[in-house]
Amino acid sequence: MTKTLAIDCMGGDYGPSVIIPAAISALQQHSDLKIYLVGPQQELQQHLKQSPDFGNRLHIQDACEVIGMSEKPSTALRRKPNSSMRKSLELVRDGHADACVSSGNTGALMALATVLLGTLPGIERPAITAELPNRKGTVTNMLDLGANIDASAEQLTSFAIMGHVFSQLADDVEHPRVALLNIGEEAVKGRDSIKLASDILSNQSQIDYVGYIEANQIYDGNVDVIVCDGFTGNNVLKACEGITRFLYDQLKTEFTSNWWSKAVSAMVWPILRRFQRRINPDQYNGASLLGLREIVIKSHGSADSKATLFAINKAITEIERQVPQAIQDQVAQLLLNTDNEDEE
Amino acid sequence: MTKTLAIDCMGGDYGPSVIIPAAISALQQHSDLKIYLVGPQQELQQHLKQSPDFGNRLHIQDACEVIGMSEKPSTALRRKPNSSMRKSLELVRDGHADACVSSGNTGALMALATVLLGTLPGIERPAITAELPNRKGTVTNMLDLGANIDASAEQLTSFAIMGHVFSQLADDVEHPRVALLNIGEEAVKGRDSIKLASDILSNQSQIDYVGYIEANQIYDGNVDVIVCDGFTGNNVLKACEGITRFLYDQLKTEFTSNWWSKAVSAMVWPILRRFQRRINPDQYNGASLLGLREIVIKSHGSADSKATLFAINKAITEIERQVPQAIQDQVAQLLLNTDNEDEE
Repeated sequence: MTKTLAIDCMGGDYGPSVIIPAAISALQQHSDLKIYLVGPQQELQQHLKQSPDFGNRLHIQDACEVIGMSEKPSTALRRKPNSSMRKSLELVRDGHADACVSSGNTGALMALATVLLGTLPGIERPAITAELPNRKGTVTNMLDLGANIDASAEQLTSFAIMGHVFSQLADDVEHPRVALLNIGEEAVKGRDSIKLASDILSNQSQIDYVGYIEANQIYDGNVDVIVCDGFTGNNVLKACEGITRFLYDQLKTEFTSNWWSKAVSAMVWPILRRFQRRINPDQYNGASLLGLREIVIKSHGSADSKATLFAINKAITEIERQVPQAIQDQVAQLLLNTDNEDEE
Repeated sequence: MTKTLAIDCMGGDYGPSVIIPAAISALQQHSDLKIYLVGPQQELQQHLKQSPDFGNRLHIQDACEVIGMSEKPSTALRRKPNSSMRKSLELVRDGHADACVSSGNTGALMALATVLLGTLPGIERPAITAELPNRKGTVTNMLDLGANIDASAEQLTSFAIMGHVFSQLADDVEHPRVALLNIGEEAVKGRDSIKLASDILSNQSQIDYVGYIEANQIYDGNVDVIVCDGFTGNNVLKACEGITRFLYDQLKTEFTSNWWSKAVSAMVWPILRRFQRRINPDQYNGASLLGLREIVIKSHGSADSKATLFAINKAITEIERQVPQAIQDQVAQLLLNTDNEDEE
């Protein structure tokens, strides 16, 4: 089965200079892959000058406008009919591509994707999910990571259901353990929306809801899905990125602070490199916008070519596993069961 | 000047077994210190059997009830008149002690402290602040870290003012740079309460308000005060604790994964120890409950004796610098100026 991607080349900190090399690597890795590079034709052609010839596996879709990182979602929706982001999503909407990858403005991507592709039945708002590493060596899916500034109890519940399905599908976890992020493990603490979502989830039997989790346990690997509102999730994830960078830099400083540690550091270098590779957030690049009718992957704004390739490969996996269809089937079933149990 | 502390011995994961040794170390360090240990008399006496005689510098204040870590603040307020936490705060309220240190239930401590000690004029709700290390080698004050699940624009503004004053006072920063935590640096993003607080802070000239900061910049040291609601702050801080522990454990694993790295690790050990000391959150133990009329320090629930001693020393510093009085003076001035500018 040929898989076709629409790649928005104009997002992120580096634009086509890192995105096009990643697309070329993906075409080299996957012989059944077809890619639409979306952006200003001349600019993209410039970047393709040195690239091999992929025949009809590589197309340029001209899009002369770019949505800036600080533009309002409403501007993206109403003012820029020819943005690279919109054109990429339209290729998916119109059936020319199976998935869209973009590293552009998250708010604009969410808004455009929701309007152009629509949400699945029973899903009010999409959510952004990403895989986090943990000390068990598996991954933990956390959502929402920034699509929704606030989340009602019903929205948190639907995030839990989507996370449950996604963990089964993307990570092969048979019975995912789902938790709500809260500021205490005790039932008396936290926001009303979280307490109500906890009540709803406690009163159903389809999902293995294990209760509250505190943020210091995110990396313990004792749960498979962590659910929170997008403001909290985004802040938590970014803070962890920041402190990881800080700690790694501190460690490097310690290893070069005197002649002895400098001498030792030469020997330690391969060990530190292995450590850095293991905690490297790039290898987890590519957040999924769950709850949409089609596949949309958000790549990190600061992603380099290698990290962008991870996001592209994530899109390919989701096409192979038909994630939206599977979510739709299971969400319908789970929502139905939850409703039935409510009525009993 | 004699300084007197009321120490709640019944909070935290380890209770008097770690708190009393910390209190004894503090008495040994400070000859002008007097301490009330608060908790069940017989139990505390048991822990003091081996301790030196401090004469009238050490008292036991009997308190037969304990507030559990999962009890509701309302239970702490209404049901337990003889809790160690309440008795400790009453010693401060009644002028017998200059500050209270507790590692008990944060929600209960906030509620009891607010009711028993009262807030400063112009401050609607207290906030929890703590010092975070950063890559500049200074500290960054972050608030609120869990006192308020949500925060209005006005509350965020008062947190900014308190953080500004505290940074001047506790960290000797002459012109603290104050930022609001948000999920984007752009003015169009984030919650309405945050946008409104940003407008209020932009329209005054007393505080050096520098705009939004994203969570991945918390440890960069480019600002001195970071303001957010307590739900977000608490989650961000705990997530950073969790990932720090995770990364350190991963690093240890790398250093023992084969004979070569084991051999190297013997040489590396002192460097890693120095690294761990440098990032050790214990040395930052002791969060201040700002906005109250008296000094209350919350020690971490999992603090050991050494970390508890840090919290005790923080209380002593705040007594010496008369933090609540200084906040009151400056907040009154700043609130007045903010109001005047509003009216112009």
